[in-house]
Amino acid sequence: MKSHLDCFPCFLRQSLIALRFGTNDEWLQQSVLKSTLEDIRKADTSKPPAYTTTFIHRRIRQMLGKDPFRSIKSECNRHALNLYPSLKISVEKSDDPLWMSTRLAIAGNVIDFGIFTSVDIEGTISNALNNQLAVDDYLEFQDALSSTDEILYLADNAGEIVFDRLLIETLISTGKTVLAVVKGGPVINDATLEDAAESGLANVCEVIDNGSDAVGTILEWTPESFKKIFKNARLVISKGQGNFETLGGAEKKIFFLFQSKCDVVSKELGLPKGSMLLKKS
Amino acid sequence: MKSHLDCFPCFLRQSLIALRFGTNDEWLQQSVLKSTLEDIRKADTSKPPAYTTTFIHRRIRQMLGKDPFRSIKSECNRHALNLYPSLKISVEKSDDPLWMSTRLAIAGNVIDFGIFTSVDIEGTISNALNNQLAVDDYLEFQDALSSTDEILYLADNAGEIVFDRLLIETLISTGKTVLAVVKGGPVINDATLEDAAESGLANVCEVIDNGSDAVGTILEWTPESFKKIFKNARLVISKGQGNFETLGGAEKKIFFLFQSKCDVVSKELGLPKGSMLLKKS
Repeated sequence: MKSHLDCFPCFLRQSLIALRFGTNDEWLQQSVLKSTLEDIRKADTSKPPAYTTTFIHRRIRQMLGKDPFRSIKSECNRHALNLYPSLKISVEKSDDPLWMSTRLAIAGNVIDFGIFTSVDIEGTISNALNNQLAVDDYLEFQDALSSTDEILYLADNAGEIVFDRLLIETLISTGKTVLAVVKGGPVINDATLEDAAESGLANVCEVIDNGSDAVGTILEWTPESFKKIFKNARLVISKGQGNFETLGGAEKKIFFLFQSKCDVVSKELGLPKGSMLLKKS
Repeated sequence: MKSHLDCFPCFLRQSLIALRFGTNDEWLQQSVLKSTLEDIRKADTSKPPAYTTTFIHRRIRQMLGKDPFRSIKSECNRHALNLYPSLKISVEKSDDPLWMSTRLAIAGNVIDFGIFTSVDIEGTISNALNNQLAVDDYLEFQDALSSTDEILYLADNAGEIVFDRLLIETLISTGKTVLAVVKGGPVINDATLEDAAESGLANVCEVIDNGSDAVGTILEWTPESFKKIFKNARLVISKGQGNFETLGGAEKKIFFLFQSKCDVVSKELGLPKGSMLLKKS
């Protein structure tokens, strides 16, 4: 998808969230915020908003001299791990563990401190299981899974990655091999290898990083090694709105599991903001 | 009040509203929007946000080669004039015409196309009359009116100015002399002499312009002639959030009639967004 002018105010809003996680110094916040205006000025609206936000968050980390989301990411992982045992029982007791763990993986996508400043995790889990998906390609998802044993799984956020672990464990229990992919460097609250370790996912399946600190998956910015893995993948499970923004047009069998969190993406999809999707590419 | 970093995204959001009123050309919208980033970069946060928005809206008008709000302002005036006869009867039938017309003047403040893209005028009028004001200095207002016969009335928006006319007519009917003030040039949807004429206010009392195209009333940018009028005023009625932002700290007996329309101002006031106020300086 391309960037919309409505993304411009949101670029600043998201920058402010990052800056407030990163420092209490209001002059530093202002100085960095004003610097990000240069990235907005250069925004190429023919590209997804993820391009501009990648530049912005690089600048924020560089000017703050740290990853502002590191501690909140670990907090998200810990919070999600506290929920893990009871969620694991829900999956195991379910008549359809794939359905249950898929729904939980979508529910986990709401834990996005890059956009929200507070979340109601338990309520969201309950909603995700009880409310219909706005787009529900579950039958096609089951069908796709029946024709391949190898899955490339693009994770999204810290915390959420514990929910991904539930789905990945379910897939592995049915004989699948899953290669999970996290970010090559910190960006917003996206999961990195550190989060794969903290969440326990690294003990469940092979986890690689995509060699990139971009929001979503901007293939042209990933190294050849990752491009090759993506190209050869027979089935991709893609988490989060950022990956949908950047891979929505890819020539690949992808199932996008996410919640549409902003007005622009929701409008493109023709759905209300906050809709949950299991959407075939 | 000073500007907050939360005003920065809002500067862009408001610019976009103005641009969409002004042109359907998305490339022009983008070009102007990106130009306004320079005004945001220069924002002096020790000053009210009205300073930055004044620069932004000057730039927008200059780059579009027109006032993007002119036609919507006339539409607001017409819509409000349609309501005028029944509102006038409500005032005249009221046990306390001053109370009724003051409340209506506050209700009229919601007609602000600079911030909102749609409004429910009739519902707002009903709410304004039936809900309590968050700050209600009506007794002090009555008291102040009893000790002077001359009132300086700072109008805010087109459309709303018809509601101001109801209050001004009530004041005149009790023997007061009212000097109404509009903007010296177009800015957002603020009332100018053209709107004073369209609304019929110009036939009710003397109307002058403040010689400035600033959002709110930035005294240092007004000509000496207006500074003198303001300085000598014994009682000022000030409409709208912009005037509160810019005159909130003035050494002057002012009654501010407005709705707090943004998070930043509401937080400064310690009130929920959307609160209605009749607030003594």
